[in-house]
Amino acid sequence: MTMNSSKPSAADIASMSARAIAKAVAGGTLTAAAVTEVWLDRIAAVEPSLHAFIHHAPEKTRALAAVAPKGPLAGVPFGIKDVIETRDMPTEYGSAAYPGWQPSRDAPVVHLARQAGAAFMGKTVSTEFATASPGATVNPFDPKRTPGGSSSGTAAALGAGLILLGLGTQTSGSTIRPGAYCGVAAMKPSPKLIETFGVKPLSQTLDVVGPMARDIRDLALLVSVCMRRPELAPDLLAPEGELPLQPMRLFLPVHDPVADFAPLEKAASVLGSVTTQPVPDWFEAVGPAQDDVFGWEASIALATDRDLHWDKLRPMTHEFMERQAKSTFAGWQAGLATRDAALRNLDALFGGADFLITPAAPGEAPLGLERTGPATYNIRWTLLGCPSVTIPAGFGPAGMPVGLQLVARPGEDAALLRQAAAVEDRLRAAGIEARPSQS
Amino acid sequence: MTMNSSKPSAADIASMSARAIAKAVAGGTLTAAAVTEVWLDRIAAVEPSLHAFIHHAPEKTRALAAVAPKGPLAGVPFGIKDVIETRDMPTEYGSAAYPGWQPSRDAPVVHLARQAGAAFMGKTVSTEFATASPGATVNPFDPKRTPGGSSSGTAAALGAGLILLGLGTQTSGSTIRPGAYCGVAAMKPSPKLIETFGVKPLSQTLDVVGPMARDIRDLALLVSVCMRRPELAPDLLAPEGELPLQPMRLFLPVHDPVADFAPLEKAASVLGSVTTQPVPDWFEAVGPAQDDVFGWEASIALATDRDLHWDKLRPMTHEFMERQAKSTFAGWQAGLATRDAALRNLDALFGGADFLITPAAPGEAPLGLERTGPATYNIRWTLLGCPSVTIPAGFGPAGMPVGLQLVARPGEDAALLRQAAAVEDRLRAAGIEARPSQS
Repeated sequence: MTMNSSKPSAADIASMSARAIAKAVAGGTLTAAAVTEVWLDRIAAVEPSLHAFIHHAPEKTRALAAVAPKGPLAGVPFGIKDVIETRDMPTEYGSAAYPGWQPSRDAPVVHLARQAGAAFMGKTVSTEFATASPGATVNPFDPKRTPGGSSSGTAAALGAGLILLGLGTQTSGSTIRPGAYCGVAAMKPSPKLIETFGVKPLSQTLDVVGPMARDIRDLALLVSVCMRRPELAPDLLAPEGELPLQPMRLFLPVHDPVADFAPLEKAASVLGSVTTQPVPDWFEAVGPAQDDVFGWEASIALATDRDLHWDKLRPMTHEFMERQAKSTFAGWQAGLATRDAALRNLDALFGGADFLITPAAPGEAPLGLERTGPATYNIRWTLLGCPSVTIPAGFGPAGMPVGLQLVARPGEDAALLRQAAAVEDRLRAAGIEARPSQS
Repeated sequence: MTMNSSKPSAADIASMSARAIAKAVAGGTLTAAAVTEVWLDRIAAVEPSLHAFIHHAPEKTRALAAVAPKGPLAGVPFGIKDVIETRDMPTEYGSAAYPGWQPSRDAPVVHLARQAGAAFMGKTVSTEFATASPGATVNPFDPKRTPGGSSSGTAAALGAGLILLGLGTQTSGSTIRPGAYCGVAAMKPSPKLIETFGVKPLSQTLDVVGPMARDIRDLALLVSVCMRRPELAPDLLAPEGELPLQPMRLFLPVHDPVADFAPLEKAASVLGSVTTQPVPDWFEAVGPAQDDVFGWEASIALATDRDLHWDKLRPMTHEFMERQAKSTFAGWQAGLATRDAALRNLDALFGGADFLITPAAPGEAPLGLERTGPATYNIRWTLLGCPSVTIPAGFGPAGMPVGLQLVARPGEDAALLRQAAAVEDRLRAAGIEARPSQS
């Protein structure tokens, strides 16, 4: 391999996007080894106080980077949520029930990232079984606040600048919410567009893999790999400011007593023509329906853990399992019927537009590390199968990141990413964006 | 535990249904150990020429039976297809790429059967990765003929009387077809009613776990456990002949040049008022659509095996993978759109009835062991998500079993099982049923 005579500095490398690194490494103007060392240094400095990783082994990362293919993610520092199986890194599913467990295979989505050349920096912290009980990770913007969950480690590692791309998962709000709390770009795709095999299952209907990144164009690159749709990436990697903005509606659930939507309204105000509308009753009903579907499916998916590992599980997981055990088949059926009815009303909600702007979370990341925050503004889109993206949209009154959640109709993932890139451009042009974390 | 003074003989035990065994073992009038020995003897006598098991260890079966719970499947000899993960038996997925591989966990559906007290007799042969390349199993009615696939071992072991209940899987026709070829009762449920985690994945949209049994009432017992719906079993275990027969339509795909439907028409003729109707074009189109959906999803699900294990895979699997690799995202989308359009026409196909009678396969099991037979009459129901059951319906001109496939609308699994039991009763009353195998 040849190197340019003017070797990029560590600071140069640290400021590169995932797409710039991949292009440079694949093109031979930068080595994966050089990139890896910069990011390993960054992890060594920050991880001891962030606790984003459940497994991080620098020698293994170096060895993997040395042999990684020069594909579309060549050399990009990459984190994988601990509930996703990996053949050369332990997978503990966030639980003491699986100490050091080593799967024999990569989940297919991990394999796709590996074949694309991503530099695996380790496994990132998940709540126990991707449910409620949090791990040790703190928010990169304030260690007294939750990073959100269940994809806590991937979100925090991205927010703190320890990785450039990563994988989370979502069943209620586990990708969008931590993404918003940590100031990163994240996507909950439509169901079935990214293979979920090898992800610890909670719900056949709801589980999705959630790609996460520093910005929307990096996110699109990762999504294109995870979905095996290379046509998505170049389309989105158009120069900033050149993507047209399609009409959107601002959809604010106004009855929430604790939510603070002022930062979101400010961000939305720079996006041109948007209109609000009240929350219809049928939309509210999708929330309890999500719970009924989740409950019945999770009580089956977690049956072995409940029966065999109860004593090793944490109290919040016990509570979760006891609540889910009350779910019924009739409730599951009714929940799916509510979803199907709601999908028939979806056009009315979108009005003439193809996109909704809606909160990613009720506000900034709450104080405390005992809970990961409410999924109020995520669960309905998850059950409806609507793809959504959270876009970093400035900061709230406590100085914490706020996410703008952009939602599209089921299957419109490509259009959603294009619109999200256009929104991000407009927000940046208006000075509304995520700042680097303090660390 | 108390035992009756008149101990049942081995012949008595061998003639009992799964539901009778479970009731006797749970009630203390029979021990799981006594049942197990009878069936182990049967396996020792027949398995050397049948090749239904990939793993069978009598000492392990005895040890498991001694500690099994006295639940609704107490003591019932049980087989599990090799593509379904088990924590105490190897899982090779039908492939030389996973020799002796031992998963750490039971698939949830295995766990449900275990907690219900089933006596695990071993892992049954699958084609490689549940696709096309067959294992060593022969048809229990004629060793020169295929048992069907991909659930070859479970079907053959049931047909030969080596187990009383078992699990298969279906993505195209892998449960219904081998069930019909081996003269057993088998079900392809609606999607998501039985958890598929821990099953080697081919297609997120199509894969289902397929329960298999000797007759419909035993099948209903197993389905009630796999779906965690105990209300299904007692309902169906009504005395024979007392279930009302609901209207059905006989739906014969008449354009098939190789099919022989005479045995099916004979069976259907004893079921009262049935009407035929021609095959609409939109229904034909569902076949290629299933292939497009399967192809795109399987090429992702099997990516690790293709990239890492190619040299260990069999030629027919290579062919399968090369064909699937040509699948496109656009084809996948179009296939799902075809399915959705077909679902809107389904009422017209069913007419005023809730059930269709249709072939389980084009005819009897074909001669030869190199192929497992065509899935022509299964793939459309699989993509449509219609539950179906194959009911043993006598024998064809070559003396091989013929299956009557009963199909219902998506989600109507309980009604389908009730109707299937009523159909089985009528067929038996008319002298049309599966005889025990020659072995």
